[in-house]
Order: sequence, then C-alpha cells, then structure tokens
Amino acid sequence: MAHEIQIVTEADLRAAIRLDVDMVNVIERAFAALAGGEVVMPPILSMDLPQANAEVDVKTAYIPGFDGFAIKVSPGFFDNPALGLASLNGLMILFSAKTGLVEAVYLDNGYLTDIRTAAAGAVAARHLAPDTVETAGVIGTGVQARLQMQAAHLVRPFKRVLVHGRSADKAAACAKDLAATLGIEAVAVDDPATLVADSQLVVTTTPARNPVLMADWLHPGLHITAMGADQEGKNEIDPQAIADSDLYVCDRVSQCETSGELEAARVAGVLEGVTPPELGEIVVGKTEGRQSAQDITICDLTGTGAQDTAIASHVRAALPDAGTRIRT
Amino acid sequence: MAHEIQIVTEADLRAAIRLDVDMVNVIERAFAALAGGEVVMPPILSMDLPQANAEVDVKTAYIPGFDGFAIKVSPGFFDNPALGLASLNGLMILFSAKTGLVEAVYLDNGYLTDIRTAAAGAVAARHLAPDTVETAGVIGTGVQARLQMQAAHLVRPFKRVLVHGRSADKAAACAKDLAATLGIEAVAVDDPATLVADSQLVVTTTPARNPVLMADWLHPGLHITAMGADQEGKNEIDPQAIADSDLYVCDRVSQCETSGELEAARVAGVLEGVTPPELGEIVVGKTEGRQSAQDITICDLTGTGAQDTAIASHVRAALPDAGTRIRT
Repeated sequence: MAHEIQIVTEADLRAAIRLDVDMVNVIERAFAALAGGEVVMPPILSMDLPQANAEVDVKTAYIPGFDGFAIKVSPGFFDNPALGLASLNGLMILFSAKTGLVEAVYLDNGYLTDIRTAAAGAVAARHLAPDTVETAGVIGTGVQARLQMQAAHLVRPFKRVLVHGRSADKAAACAKDLAATLGIEAVAVDDPATLVADSQLVVTTTPARNPVLMADWLHPGLHITAMGADQEGKNEIDPQAIADSDLYVCDRVSQCETSGELEAARVAGVLEGVTPPELGEIVVGKTEGRQSAQDITICDLTGTGAQDTAIASHVRAALPDAGTRIRT
Repeated sequence: MAHEIQIVTEADLRAAIRLDVDMVNVIERAFAALAGGEVVMPPILSMDLPQANAEVDVKTAYIPGFDGFAIKVSPGFFDNPALGLASLNGLMILFSAKTGLVEAVYLDNGYLTDIRTAAAGAVAARHLAPDTVETAGVIGTGVQARLQMQAAHLVRPFKRVLVHGRSADKAAACAKDLAATLGIEAVAVDDPATLVADSQLVVTTTPARNPVLMADWLHPGLHITAMGADQEGKNEIDPQAIADSDLYVCDRVSQCETSGELEAARVAGVLEGVTPPELGEIVVGKTEGRQSAQDITICDLTGTGAQDTAIASHVRAALPDAGTRIRT
C-alpha cells in the first residue's frame, strides 16, 4: 500500500516552530501524560564514543491517545567546532502509533530538542517559581541559556535578567542577546553567588561535573531549574542545596537518578530512601508544588522522550504540508 | 555549512541491494569487528506496546574504521495484516562516524534487516556447517525461511531443501518458492523430526515460545542455526539440545542471554557458569569452530547493531547517488 513520508529540514522548522506559550502548553501536556502512568518510556539508549570524543543518545516514548510516537537521535560530536560544525545534531522520526509506519522525518539538527527542552523549563517555572519574579538569573551562556530565559519569561515576565558564565565575554554576549530578545535589562555578573542572591528564579544550563550552585547561596522565595545534567557524572547543584530545599522535583525519577542531580545527591546521602515527586504529578495536581512564597524549590530536568513525542506530534499537526514528500 | 542528506526508498533498495556472496562477506566483516573488542554496541532499546499489540526495537553499533554508524528502528505492529499492511516496518539512518551528521535515511521497511539477518545465517553456515551439505531444512515458512535457505545455499550449495511449518499450505508455498529460486528439489514435510533427521543444516525461523527442535532429533554431522528468538521469552531450541551439542555459538552473548536461546538454556541449568564463544571469534580464528564432520553445532542469532552498521555502510558505498537529496 503506497504511503507518503514527509521530510522536513531545519530551515523549514525554524521558520514555523517557535518557543511560545502554545509550545509550553504542548510540553506541559507531555508531563501530564507522564503522570498518568500509561506512558511507555524505555530507558535512554546511550552510546558513549570516547574514540570520537562523542556520544549518541536515543529517546522515545509512547503516549496513549497520541496519534504518533517519536524516536529522537541526538549525536554530540565535540570535536565538530574545530571543523566549523555544531557539536549537537540529529533528527526526530515520527511513527504512526497505530501502524508503526514512518510518517515524518524532521531533520532538525537538534532544533526541536532545543525548543522542547526550553519549554520544559517554562513548565517548571509555571508550577514551581514564586508568582512574582522580578529578576531571573541564568548560569551558562549557550543556546539553552538564551532559550531558558525566553521560556521562563513567557510564564514569569521578569523585569531583569542576570547572566553568569565562566567566560565574561560569552556572558556579556548572552546578556546582550537577551536584552534584545526580551526587551528588558540584562546584566552579565562575575559572581554566581550574587546572581543567585538577586534572583527569584535561576536556571543552570551547564555541562558541569562539579556544582555551580552552592547550598549557602539559597534564600527564601527562590526557584532553581537545573537542566544541564543529562549524563552520568554531570552535576550542577550542590547536593546540600537539594537537602536544604523545601521541594525537589524530577522530570523523571528513573532518569534523574542515573543522569541528573539526584545521582550526586544520592551519592552524598541526600534523599536516601525517598522518591521525589515528578513534575507531571505537580502539573496534574497529584502532588502539591510550591506551598508558600518563601519556599525554596528545585526542579531537575534530564529531558524525556515524552517531550520529543509531544513536539513531533505538534509539528506534524502544525505543518502537514511542509517539506518534501517521499512516496514509498 | 550546507550538507546533503540522501533519502532512499525501499523500491530503490530492493532494485539494487541483493543477498549474494558479497553481502555475506560484508556481514562477515561485521562479526569480525565484533570480535575485535573495539565495537561499541549498546543494549537494544526495546519498547513493548501491549496497548497496540506492538513492539519497537532500536539497534546501533559503532565500528572503528567504518566511516558511518547506523541507527536502525524496527517497529512491529502485529495488528497491521488486518489493515492490509506488513507487521514489520522501519528504517535505517546512517550517521557520519566523524561528525555525527545524518548522511542517509534508508526507508527500507525492514528490507535491509531481512538481508543482513539472512547473511548472518550464511556466515554461521560458512564457519559451522559440515563442508558438505546435501540436504538443508528450514522450520518456518515466512520471509526469513526463504532468505535463510537462499543465504545458506550461497555457502553450502545443497541439492535438496526441506520445509516444515505449522501450516502445510504455507510450507508447500515456501517449498515451491525455494524450488524456483534455487533451482533444486524442495519438499514440504509434515514431521519436523524427519526434516532434521534428513538434513545436515537446519535453520529455525519461528517466533516460537516453546522449542520447535528437540534434543532427541540431533544426529552427528548436523548444524543448526536458530534465528527466530529476538525477545525475552522466545525459544526455538530444546535446552537439552544445546547441552548435547558439541559447540554452541552466540552472535552476541549479552543478547543471547536475554533474548536468544541462551535465555531458556540458562533457566534449564544448561551452560551454567560457561560463556559460550561468539560467531565473530570463530570468524577471526580466536576460537575454533567445527572440529570434525561428525560434530553437532548450534548457532544462536539474535541480530546485532553491527550488522546494521555494516549493511548501511555498504549501501552508502554502493548507491552514492540513489534517491532524493535533501539540502539542509
């Protein structure tokens, strides 16, 4: 039986798919589905390639009620910049959830991952940050530093953004970009402790293997989203900060234990024998989120296949005619 | 930096990529590489979807010295025949092993998997079957029954083929097809014990969950390849047959233990504390294969990502200009 497969390039996706409140809602529904218990989300297939200074991850999730499911391949080849290429690339494939036939191939080079990752930060901020955020801070100066602040601003329209990075130049460039994009004051700061002290919402976006945010910087009324750790050994948040917080939330406990902040926390003896709540459980009201304006909350995002299935399904609905159709 | 991705359909692949001795050699090199110890082959990502009567497997392997690595997605949706669709579908994606960029998408609907799976059967027969095979037998009547006999005939040009299946009609149809394809006598037989008794080479190609080949059917000078089991709980070969054989060989021990014949054998207490050799070790001469014409040998094939990387790399070299090029 003849069948058409849609092939869509990064350029077409960038032109049409944006980080906006609709997208935050799309990703929020993925978290709600995860809380339903009927999502099938196998462990991430992870291939470490030290020979090539590279790693390849494959994620997927089947969400009941969705017409399709995505398989997302994310290669990271860290010698690429020397060749004038981006380190991160990859694609998403959308399959029919009824027949398993390929419906679309999104040659996005990681763009859809960037968007769905930032949107998850907005879902965390929507449900966990204090109602009023005057100042937001970001630790890290890359693509996600910019996108996480744009995403957070959609749900907590802060007036000022602070940026810290190991490179003062990169922090200044990131602040400049954010000032232009958000139309607000943006300041690069040298001291991350000051950034945290002056912010009500902080996002960490680094590949750190040692904490970049320390427990004694915490203050009442602070929300932190840590989205950098996505592999064994990565760690952005001082385990003591997790112990000291009022609420620590995972995107997926099974992933955070092996590749998120919970990994280092467990090693440090924090949350021993405790299963933290998941973001989706807070989205659907199964678990309570922030209890008061003074709470200190932390959300740990490792990235889920459910987000990939949600954004790929959204793209399919939004761009039914884009790209090239291959008859097979 | 602009980059072109090649999209090739099943029709183009079927027209150009054949099961022949060259293909057997391509897949043999994959097994040789597996024995080298430098292949990176993560555990299969397997998503079981009872809600949809379906399963999805993702395989990959990085082989040092190869220009690319494949990621292969195999959805099996077992209600498809009622919709007039094949149960098995899927695609292979070839990535640059240097940059991680997507080089080609092979929309093969499982065709390349069929070919590389059959070719592995030929590699097993080449290294493990007796030098002279007059009669070969196959248990099972599907696509792999036909392809496994074609593949085995490339390396052991037998004069007669016997076919057994639960459906006598399907066995007769399979025998008729094999007679036409191989130009030899092909006979459907009702009794699998007779088939084994009369054959020097037997391939089992069923999704059985209980043995279809029993220990008391074994005879000197017999080689068996079991390629049906590829999931927990599947089992074609009586564990006692493995215990009674002179040599039992895995394509990959770690896979055979969880989804091949070794799973049921271990449960039955066979090969306790023993690590069987792998086919690649026999290909490269690290381990000895068949010792005498009288030996009874068994090879257990679960299907490896290394075979996928090998066939996808071969297709890339063989069809540099086929299909549609997408500029991205």
